[in-house]
Amino acid sequence: MQIKLIIEYDGAAYFGWQFQDGQDSIQARIEAALAQIFSTPLRVRAAGRTDAGVHALGQVASFSLPREFEAGALRRSLNALLPRDIVILGAEPAPDSFDPRRDALSRIYEYRILNRFPPSAFEHQRSWHIREPLDLDAMNAAAARFIGEHDFAAFRTLGTEMRSTVRRVIESRWRREGDCAVYHVEATSFVRHMVRTMVAAMVDIGRGKCGPDSIDRILESRDRAQAPAAAPASGLYLVAVRY
Amino acid sequence: MQIKLIIEYDGAAYFGWQFQDGQDSIQARIEAALAQIFSTPLRVRAAGRTDAGVHALGQVASFSLPREFEAGALRRSLNALLPRDIVILGAEPAPDSFDPRRDALSRIYEYRILNRFPPSAFEHQRSWHIREPLDLDAMNAAAARFIGEHDFAAFRTLGTEMRSTVRRVIESRWRREGDCAVYHVEATSFVRHMVRTMVAAMVDIGRGKCGPDSIDRILESRDRAQAPAAAPASGLYLVAVRY
Repeated sequence: MQIKLIIEYDGAAYFGWQFQDGQDSIQARIEAALAQIFSTPLRVRAAGRTDAGVHALGQVASFSLPREFEAGALRRSLNALLPRDIVILGAEPAPDSFDPRRDALSRIYEYRILNRFPPSAFEHQRSWHIREPLDLDAMNAAAARFIGEHDFAAFRTLGTEMRSTVRRVIESRWRREGDCAVYHVEATSFVRHMVRTMVAAMVDIGRGKCGPDSIDRILESRDRAQAPAAAPASGLYLVAVRY
Repeated sequence: MQIKLIIEYDGAAYFGWQFQDGQDSIQARIEAALAQIFSTPLRVRAAGRTDAGVHALGQVASFSLPREFEAGALRRSLNALLPRDIVILGAEPAPDSFDPRRDALSRIYEYRILNRFPPSAFEHQRSWHIREPLDLDAMNAAAARFIGEHDFAAFRTLGTEMRSTVRRVIESRWRREGDCAVYHVEATSFVRHMVRTMVAAMVDIGRGKCGPDSIDRILESRDRAQAPAAAPASGLYLVAVRY
């Protein structure tokens, strides 16, 4: 049997989800806590490998249970051992065949922009601070152009090899939330840095540098050089994974 | 001439607004930054002395300008010198007679309760974590009983002397915000620990320990012993001061 974990984390202090020698990662922290509980080393697999500084409200991960352990007690034990910026929201039994990455039907991300002149005492490392007013209507017109199946070759990180860069975007829209502009996007899956590069392209439009139709041109080019540099990691949240 | 400052701060790292020997305070940080800008010691007066751990979204303070200085440039200089958890949102000229405390017509506070079972990776030191579901309808019925002029003697801190504990509450209501319950209260002024003690009394009602009419009984008693201990400072925000 496996245990499926739903995990929330403030990624500011970590070098991302994935274990890296000599770096502090979410995976390393959770595996260390599990090793303490079960007195045996355990590997945890996640639905998505969030980058350094990226946050999660609903990351999903799983591991093989080495012996009987009640899921609710496991959640409490993990939360007692984990630092305050990593929280297990849920723990439930899952079949041995469960693969959090392959079995996912879609992922939902949000990207948070603090859009006001002064910085915020509360949003540091939790958003991207943009002082100039953004045209959210234009950004929503741009967001709509991502919906459907597209080749996201222009929105990937160079250097990452993958069989296909075609992805299907299910939802894509901006909303205002106080002084923030929040982008909500759901897709079957994402190529690396896809959301942050999409956000950067839409911010260019919100700043009036180009029109919403520039999205079509960048998509059609399949050329990474046509898209702007990725938006900062600090604004990105993995919100949920659907199965 | 004076300068009126609108200040936002995350109070988690500070021993409150007011200067205290050997402690880190918001006032000390702002006075240190002003001393650096003007090369002379300056005293800053605030609308309300927030306690240790209490936050502000719109604290108001003022100081006498020792020499010509453009308000916009002053805001930028202060923000460049202040730590990230203290932000000057606005700086504007005010008459010499301006007194941020005495001239205030009313103050608005909010109190934030994280009301879900697991803790939050993001709300640590920014809310009061209550695991049991709270009955927000009962808490709203209780909140309405505070509206109007009442003697808040039962809701003050013992040991603080004051001429009168009669205060007029203008608005008082709870709302849901995601996993949080947020209390919004406006009053002409507040006695010390008043909001936190009101919140604690309403949480007792939200937990079903007593009914909304217990508010009337506590108010009428004018006896501090009839009210519960104050709610934690971490959930309290000074939102705005009206003039």
